[in-house]
Amino acid sequence: MQTIAKSREIRLASRPSGWPTDEHFELAEVELQAAGPGEVLVRNTHMSVEPYMRGRMNDLKSYVPPFEIGKALQGSAVGFVVESNDASLPVGTWVQSMFGWREYAVAPAKAFTKIDASVAPANAYLGVLGIPGFTAWVGLNIIAELKANEVLFISSAAGGVGSIGGQLAKLKGATVIGSAGGPEKARFLTKELGFDVAIDYKEGSIGKKLAAAAPGGIDVYFDNVGGEQLDAALVALRPFGRVAACGMISGYNGEQPAVRNLITVVGKRLKVQGFIVSDHIARFDEFVSEVAPYLRDGKIHAPESFVDGVENAPRAFIDMLRGGKHIGKVLVRVAPEGSCP
Amino acid sequence: MQTIAKSREIRLASRPSGWPTDEHFELAEVELQAAGPGEVLVRNTHMSVEPYMRGRMNDLKSYVPPFEIGKALQGSAVGFVVESNDASLPVGTWVQSMFGWREYAVAPAKAFTKIDASVAPANAYLGVLGIPGFTAWVGLNIIAELKANEVLFISSAAGGVGSIGGQLAKLKGATVIGSAGGPEKARFLTKELGFDVAIDYKEGSIGKKLAAAAPGGIDVYFDNVGGEQLDAALVALRPFGRVAACGMISGYNGEQPAVRNLITVVGKRLKVQGFIVSDHIARFDEFVSEVAPYLRDGKIHAPESFVDGVENAPRAFIDMLRGGKHIGKVLVRVAPEGSCP
Repeated sequence: MQTIAKSREIRLASRPSGWPTDEHFELAEVELQAAGPGEVLVRNTHMSVEPYMRGRMNDLKSYVPPFEIGKALQGSAVGFVVESNDASLPVGTWVQSMFGWREYAVAPAKAFTKIDASVAPANAYLGVLGIPGFTAWVGLNIIAELKANEVLFISSAAGGVGSIGGQLAKLKGATVIGSAGGPEKARFLTKELGFDVAIDYKEGSIGKKLAAAAPGGIDVYFDNVGGEQLDAALVALRPFGRVAACGMISGYNGEQPAVRNLITVVGKRLKVQGFIVSDHIARFDEFVSEVAPYLRDGKIHAPESFVDGVENAPRAFIDMLRGGKHIGKVLVRVAPEGSCP
Repeated sequence: MQTIAKSREIRLASRPSGWPTDEHFELAEVELQAAGPGEVLVRNTHMSVEPYMRGRMNDLKSYVPPFEIGKALQGSAVGFVVESNDASLPVGTWVQSMFGWREYAVAPAKAFTKIDASVAPANAYLGVLGIPGFTAWVGLNIIAELKANEVLFISSAAGGVGSIGGQLAKLKGATVIGSAGGPEKARFLTKELGFDVAIDYKEGSIGKKLAAAAPGGIDVYFDNVGGEQLDAALVALRPFGRVAACGMISGYNGEQPAVRNLITVVGKRLKVQGFIVSDHIARFDEFVSEVAPYLRDGKIHAPESFVDGVENAPRAFIDMLRGGKHIGKVLVRVAPEGSCP
């Protein structure tokens, strides 16, 4: 059994009031405790950076408690067991946990979930087969009840949730319009992911572009951004349309953008429904059993962007929030490639 | 059989772009056609003025077609048959129709619905037992699924829909907070209708007042106005709260008010759902069977304000839209009292 002495981790240094910057994060090195009875020591290989983490940096009551200043941040991570005092997780087992933002974690075995690395590489459990993929699946199927032959508009469509959501909708038989920032991402949506139409929201009027893309209107808007795109969608939605409100990233780092077209909700009998994926965890297996075969058969692509080193996680997080730099799910490799079992 | 020669009616003279004024309406006198085969001639006694009519004055595609310039407006009315060529509706029968804004109407018998004037006075079918009461019932029961022990906030609470909605919620066992314009209306809500708390939205911050009225938050917001009150409700709503979006009168006559707190929809998993009462007409009988006994037993009050004369219907409509003048359902008496069978 190898003994690991030190682990690096990223802590919250202070709470941002607008956009987070490097100064709000702090890199620290800690002495690892030995795994106690029933505990395991896990070496993380990948961690995830996700928009909702910005909310946890505020000191506000929400559906998850705020991050604490001076403590390591938390978030999804995958890794493998390097020391084990629990028979259920022998050394070498691949696991998932909420102990992201650090290189190693020591905790009771029950704080980790085994993953099947024979179905897909471990990092897929942070994306297409993990919370982002499940979020897309819940939003489309449970919240918006998207049907074949309907028209979906999805924002932040080149991101971790949107890229999977749009493809799942295509596989269902829907017409898919996605928005993303910049011509490169827009091209990616149609060329690589098979979307019907891509809108570069940074250029011109989103309302006019959406009207041109869907002259007959849309049935479902999968909202990851809020603000202007939500306003455009409210105009484009057909009677009995639905908005799956997954996130409103446009308002995470400052003043809330005004939404002016809510009045359409009445006459068109629209439903705008927010959701948090953890409420639906009972259906996770159903999701995996649908999506894992798509992945295995190459029917779905899981775009990913990698950033190396836990010390670069804050930058990966900030770039993901601002958009424009990465395509697909943004993952931080916290162990060098080749260090896995 | 008496023969009626002339009827007065209100026509749309021109389309308002903001608030409607007298100039957008025109009083006209028409020669009545004799009732043809299968037709009846009805003398209206009361007609209704309702917020949704403002939308029909715009030349926009919506769930009901726009009013036509130079033609009589339409809307709910009650009256009695004075000439009949159809055995199903003998002379003296009380009926309801969409032929409001006029003194008399000639049309096929099937364009009228019999009402039972022994249960309640005919005008109740334009209010508590009519579309306004049914709208309140649908919003609370079908859209918001209000439960006993929940907290309801309802805006425009001294109006035709709100006054009934708040009382139905009280009868269900909910705590009811209503908003209305001015101290007189606010007092009316608590003293006459039995609401738990009344908020005068014209004085001070609606957000602060709502927070003070419901320190633990609200479960349902029945929205008749949109804008600031919707924003305040989004902040006050507890997790899994619902907004029954019935109308957004604050935006009917000009620029749409900005709503800035939609981001709360995600974290609190709120549902904002618009509805149009006519979609639910299959449940009208269920509504009547619940509410008519309340009315008979004096468990529900049906506040009404009357304006006399079809020539004053435009003013009644404008005053209702602006709020502040009338309490309860606003009805226009288009036949003098005492002219009924």
